[in-house]
Amino acid sequence: MKTTQKLYEGKAKILYATEDPQVLIAHFKDDATAFNAQKRGTIVDKGRINCAISTHLFQLLEANGLATHWIDTPSDREMQVKAVKILPLEVVVRNIAAGSLCRETGIALGTPLQPPLVEFYYKNDDLGDPLLTPDRLRLLNVATPEQIHQLTQLAQQVNHILQDFFEQCDITLVDFKLEFGLDQQQTLLLADEISPDTCRLWNQAEADTSRRILDKDRFRKDLGEVETAYQTVLARVVAQSSKF
Amino acid sequence: MKTTQKLYEGKAKILYATEDPQVLIAHFKDDATAFNAQKRGTIVDKGRINCAISTHLFQLLEANGLATHWIDTPSDREMQVKAVKILPLEVVVRNIAAGSLCRETGIALGTPLQPPLVEFYYKNDDLGDPLLTPDRLRLLNVATPEQIHQLTQLAQQVNHILQDFFEQCDITLVDFKLEFGLDQQQTLLLADEISPDTCRLWNQAEADTSRRILDKDRFRKDLGEVETAYQTVLARVVAQSSKF
Repeated sequence: MKTTQKLYEGKAKILYATEDPQVLIAHFKDDATAFNAQKRGTIVDKGRINCAISTHLFQLLEANGLATHWIDTPSDREMQVKAVKILPLEVVVRNIAAGSLCRETGIALGTPLQPPLVEFYYKNDDLGDPLLTPDRLRLLNVATPEQIHQLTQLAQQVNHILQDFFEQCDITLVDFKLEFGLDQQQTLLLADEISPDTCRLWNQAEADTSRRILDKDRFRKDLGEVETAYQTVLARVVAQSSKF
Repeated sequence: MKTTQKLYEGKAKILYATEDPQVLIAHFKDDATAFNAQKRGTIVDKGRINCAISTHLFQLLEANGLATHWIDTPSDREMQVKAVKILPLEVVVRNIAAGSLCRETGIALGTPLQPPLVEFYYKNDDLGDPLLTPDRLRLLNVATPEQIHQLTQLAQQVNHILQDFFEQCDITLVDFKLEFGLDQQQTLLLADEISPDTCRLWNQAEADTSRRILDKDRFRKDLGEVETAYQTVLARVVAQSSKF
């Protein structure tokens, strides 16, 4: 399917229109950013790796009855996706305390969270993607109360499926960020990507708290071997997917 | 009642023990701080003014059946209070959007909030007093779910009483911060102070968005006439209190 015009360039992807108004092409870039784009760099081959991992995981979720924007992956950096109106929310699911949760509350890194936390952040670069309480979420009026309820349930379902899958890859799914969009029928579809850019993933074969990290935290914290980590995730996801 | 030893020196008050282990003396200072003590200064006579305003408001709340730590005000900067174990929470009630709510969410200054927002912040200088979602509040385990429920109800009751009172002073109660403590019987008592340091108060006689401010925002934002504002609040609180 031929792309027509560039619609939007984000930090990690470019979105193109196609001849079909219902279909977009997402092009995955190697650009990496962190801390609201204050830190910038490149992770070699990241676009290709994240496109492949996301493809496998969207297919896994679709196979489990979850509606996603994924249609096809026609080339190694391009994903055909359904055109949706993205909600300005980041839905974060946390199975284990890490990242901003620890920084902001003092809760120790690695604390298991049972039940998992579902948190909403306002997707707004100017405001630094602030955490939203349920009251603030309601006030901002970016989704209806019914949609918020649905988003919470969808995020929990995604978590169950991904947690099981990564467990079989000997990877712990620490936390992850989802974005959702509305199609023309106002149905919520899981959108964006699911990759080491958007998940915290710990290698169960490594006890060392730094070496076990297989996600963008290697880039954020200058831990080195970023590419190797992303490739490890891809290899395990591919191997595990082939079993189905 | 004679003070014995200094127990704690905070940004705006010093707490002393007395011969009675159930009774403390709170000494109100003129020191002013803002932005987690990054900005420091002095507001002339603030200690005396806030001690007097807090005394009137604690008496008002007690007269309306709310339990506070206030016992007596033996001198113009000293308050006799019940010894309580302060919960590390700031309970913020917002009737109108201002301050961090606007900065963090982009909601416009002055937006009426109906019903009023009750928000919990973790009182922790090292962490910068972070906003807590209900889930994070539960995880931190600094109060039981029953206490959180009670704190929310108490904060709403305080808001009703103070809003009515300030309305009669021709002052709009925009928002305010409360702290609570537990006495030996594990009863929640309203503690700390209620003053222009802890409330946003807008003069209804002033249309100008800067001139109407009668609270610590004058200090935070270098608006000048800080002392005059505090004195205005005291004068109106005293005049209104004398009517009862």
